[in-house]
Amino acid sequence: MSIFSYLLPKKQNTASVAKERLQIIVARERSTRGGPDYLPQLQEELLQVVRKYVPVDQDAVNVQVDRESGCEILELNITLPEG
Amino acid sequence: MSIFSYLLPKKQNTASVAKERLQIIVARERSTRGGPDYLPQLQEELLQVVRKYVPVDQDAVNVQVDRESGCEILELNITLPEG
Repeated sequence: MSIFSYLLPKKQNTASVAKERLQIIVARERSTRGGPDYLPQLQEELLQVVRKYVPVDQDAVNVQVDRESGCEILELNITLPEG
Repeated sequence: MSIFSYLLPKKQNTASVAKERLQIIVARERSTRGGPDYLPQLQEELLQVVRKYVPVDQDAVNVQVDRESGCEILELNITLPEG
């Protein structure tokens, strides 16, 4: 299965076809020594970097964090404004 | 299929179990108007942000860019140094 079909799953309605979407996924496989949890700060800074290129409304950002067997995944889904 | 099994696919050898790995995926679904291609600069700045939290050797970074039907995917695979 190509990663495309996994990322940015097809939209339900065509109305939002004109909208640009951006998805950022950070997957961290922690070593046995653990180490600091920097994903929350990384999340904030990644958004600041994206804002240098495109305007991002805070309510247009959907954040998801998953943890499973030594792996943490941060997922940012951003709907960008039109025009 | 859970995104975990897609991201950070299981390592072949246990020697690198102690190493921490970080994967950053940026998927951009471009609107019909196109707009500037900012993924190359975004790639550089994302690395600079990660370097604030963990040291990253340039040769430990694997970059992949895929494009398919209006969607661009930037994938950074980073093996972090031990200790």
